[in-house]
Amino acid sequence: MKRYLLTISYDGTNYSGWQSQNNGTTIQNIIEDSIFKITSKKVTLFASGRTDAGVSALNQKAHFDIEEELNKNKFLKSVNAVLPQDIVIKEICLVDNNFHARYNVKKKTYSYTINLGIKDVFNDKFELHFPYKLNIKNIKRASRYLVGTHDFSSFCSSKTGVKDFNRTIYYIKVKLKSNKLNIKICGNGFLYNMVRIIVGTLLEIGQGKKRVEDIKSILKSKDRKNAGKTVDAKALLLYNVEY
Amino acid sequence: MKRYLLTISYDGTNYSGWQSQNNGTTIQNIIEDSIFKITSKKVTLFASGRTDAGVSALNQKAHFDIEEELNKNKFLKSVNAVLPQDIVIKEICLVDNNFHARYNVKKKTYSYTINLGIKDVFNDKFELHFPYKLNIKNIKRASRYLVGTHDFSSFCSSKTGVKDFNRTIYYIKVKLKSNKLNIKICGNGFLYNMVRIIVGTLLEIGQGKKRVEDIKSILKSKDRKNAGKTVDAKALLLYNVEY
Repeated sequence: MKRYLLTISYDGTNYSGWQSQNNGTTIQNIIEDSIFKITSKKVTLFASGRTDAGVSALNQKAHFDIEEELNKNKFLKSVNAVLPQDIVIKEICLVDNNFHARYNVKKKTYSYTINLGIKDVFNDKFELHFPYKLNIKNIKRASRYLVGTHDFSSFCSSKTGVKDFNRTIYYIKVKLKSNKLNIKICGNGFLYNMVRIIVGTLLEIGQGKKRVEDIKSILKSKDRKNAGKTVDAKALLLYNVEY
Repeated sequence: MKRYLLTISYDGTNYSGWQSQNNGTTIQNIIEDSIFKITSKKVTLFASGRTDAGVSALNQKAHFDIEEELNKNKFLKSVNAVLPQDIVIKEICLVDNNFHARYNVKKKTYSYTINLGIKDVFNDKFELHFPYKLNIKNIKRASRYLVGTHDFSSFCSSKTGVKDFNRTIYYIKVKLKSNKLNIKICGNGFLYNMVRIIVGTLLEIGQGKKRVEDIKSILKSKDRKNAGKTVDAKALLLYNVEY
């Protein structure tokens, strides 16, 4: 048995997220079907984590097992030829049989893009259109309070199935470039909707609806109600996964 | 009577080009309808030039006449609220009644993007996927022969309605950045399909199917058959229009 790790890029607009489910088309299903088409083998993909409906990925990682050894170049060419236009497998590599795409994750980075200017018809699908005044300095100051290991209960939508709400954020990079505000968050793992709630909270701070220091009491309260809104999924991108 | 000049950005994917016609939805029609919706005035747009089906624009320019003076901010807000997601009016300015968006053009710049790497799901709509080896140096060398004033008959698809095939190219910029080859062509005007035939010819030179020096005899021959293929419209972008 061989274990292969895939690097996958997808535009999540038209999918019900990554994970296989009974209703709706998922990215996992589409890729598993495509691998079946070219190898005649039913494989199961194990991703670094699920992404929600509408969320895209620049570099999602997922592994699968298969009996035969694959010709990697041939595999990439064949599978990308049967995959739809909005999913592409960028890399395939053979990994140890003990490797696990989810359990071995060391760092994950998400990117969130906000367009503060006039609508950009070329990127509108992948960014939040938010043409309002923001104090970027305050967003940066507030973001620093989130770096480190904290209980992020206040930044988690659904508490089912999770026992430990502690996560470590390694960095939050806030960059403004010609009216596009990009927020990159790198951590050891993320709770349900955590990135989207963090961004929603930072935007409220940027607008002056919350104060910079409020982020401390929000964290401390461990109460979702105190944080900001969950921003739109379409502007969220799983940027990278590191092992 | 007031004359206004619009700067318009559009994703041309779903349109039958700029120009009004009986079949298909055009960008001109959509914008004229939108202006009617918000002003109750039937206006006619005069663009810097038509763009073909599938071609996009970062900065198309078009003027129209209207009796009343417009509140520019209000106009932009209202018209963008009724326009579809793939068209946006970025600017409006009052111009002299003698100004003409087509006749007064001094420079036009088109951009063409070629992805030489693996498919990019986020930009696939706007670039030619061309994962083949190219000699970029030869493309740059060949492009220099096109700069200046020449009879571009060999780079023109349809000769109807045109008497003068002389055009001036001010520059051709060829830039490679992480597997994306971008070609920008700036000139005083372009013949039908001229940019797409130039790019098609440069790609054949880059692939070694034609030699760098062939570009001279192609120009000289004034025969469309000697130039390269007309490349796909989707990767062509009207980048800028200058007056």
